[in-house]
Amino acid sequence: MAPRKQQEIFDATLALLARRGYESLTIEGVAELSGVNKTTIYRWWPSKPALLAAALMEADALAFDPPDTGTLRGDLEALVEGVIALLTSPPSSDIAVAALGAAVHHPELNIGAFFADRFAREQEIFERARSRGEPAATADPLMVLDLLAGAVWVRAIFRGLPVEAGFARRAVSAVLDGVAGEEGADSEEGAGEEGAGGGEGAGGEARMGSEEGVGSGGEG
Amino acid sequence: MAPRKQQEIFDATLALLARRGYESLTIEGVAELSGVNKTTIYRWWPSKPALLAAALMEADALAFDPPDTGTLRGDLEALVEGVIALLTSPPSSDIAVAALGAAVHHPELNIGAFFADRFAREQEIFERARSRGEPAATADPLMVLDLLAGAVWVRAIFRGLPVEAGFARRAVSAVLDGVAGEEGADSEEGAGEEGAGGGEGAGGEARMGSEEGVGSGGEG
Repeated sequence: MAPRKQQEIFDATLALLARRGYESLTIEGVAELSGVNKTTIYRWWPSKPALLAAALMEADALAFDPPDTGTLRGDLEALVEGVIALLTSPPSSDIAVAALGAAVHHPELNIGAFFADRFAREQEIFERARSRGEPAATADPLMVLDLLAGAVWVRAIFRGLPVEAGFARRAVSAVLDGVAGEEGADSEEGAGEEGAGGGEGAGGEARMGSEEGVGSGGEG
Repeated sequence: MAPRKQQEIFDATLALLARRGYESLTIEGVAELSGVNKTTIYRWWPSKPALLAAALMEADALAFDPPDTGTLRGDLEALVEGVIALLTSPPSSDIAVAALGAAVHHPELNIGAFFADRFAREQEIFERARSRGEPAATADPLMVLDLLAGAVWVRAIFRGLPVEAGFARRAVSAVLDGVAGEEGADSEEGAGEEGAGGGEGAGGEARMGSEEGVGSGGEG
């Protein structure tokens, strides 16, 4: 199948998932929206879960290229910005949330394979950092990525709070420097004392940001 | 209504949610399982979403007491262990996953209120740490909790990977100390150069643990 045709099928699949949910998604509907014959779709993907699993993995709407900014910190910040955009800007946010909802009820969609594929590509970031000799590059990539991606999911989707400017920078700083480093980040002293040196800095702003965030949406 | 009766209704609601999913959950079903008259349930909670939202917030099955171990690190590790248990041991794992799936499709369940309620109680941990004068207690609690809870969700639910022993300790260390502290273990050089104090630690073991985790379930 021509790649462009395949993309149209995948995009139609995800658009219908986002619009109507998994239960109402049908291969007939995908055929209609993409203008591809139903039997053609069935020839390539024998079932709705097979089609959706392929669409999640391959669709342009969820496409992913690991950032390459020249530093591990920059790459991780760009990665977090990407997750924020994915989870807060339609249509990708609608797709991601609908896909998550479908995946937790339908293990056959194997969302784990999607995350494993992402992780395999994200490891490049750490390989490049290691080749540059960056010290933090010896960290456990899976842990770093779970913490960072997880924070965006919890903030944007579970808590339903706005993701304030600076979130990516602060999240990456927490994981690379430690939260004691967060408040020492702007000051010259601190970092290195205890993994928890003092210092004024982004801490106050950070706390304000978060309280504001909670107030504006959390308890409603 | 007597608190015990109310708990029976909530527990029945969550048990049916986990067993059959949100679409098949009915107040009739809850009445039958809990042995409480349907009209009594309707008198207290006028709709299915109202009942489920109350059950998520109040049910014993998802009950939460902030840990109090005497240190911020200990409290956070206990908190992460609690999230791991919640998300990996039935019946709570089935309930949590079903509730998440329902919440992403049904904004009226207002899962954000559930997370806001949890956060309000989790803040005690940081207040106690501040009153003890622990330096890391000046960190942004919301960010710390988003990172830690998010990491467990991504690892256990999204990736569908086993959560290895030591995960809580390593996750908390990453956020409190930074991952550069983790790595100091293997290399003598490096750590500290980069705004990230040195220190020996669990780095080597940590990395092994995670590779094992990926290998054993990630790409399947």
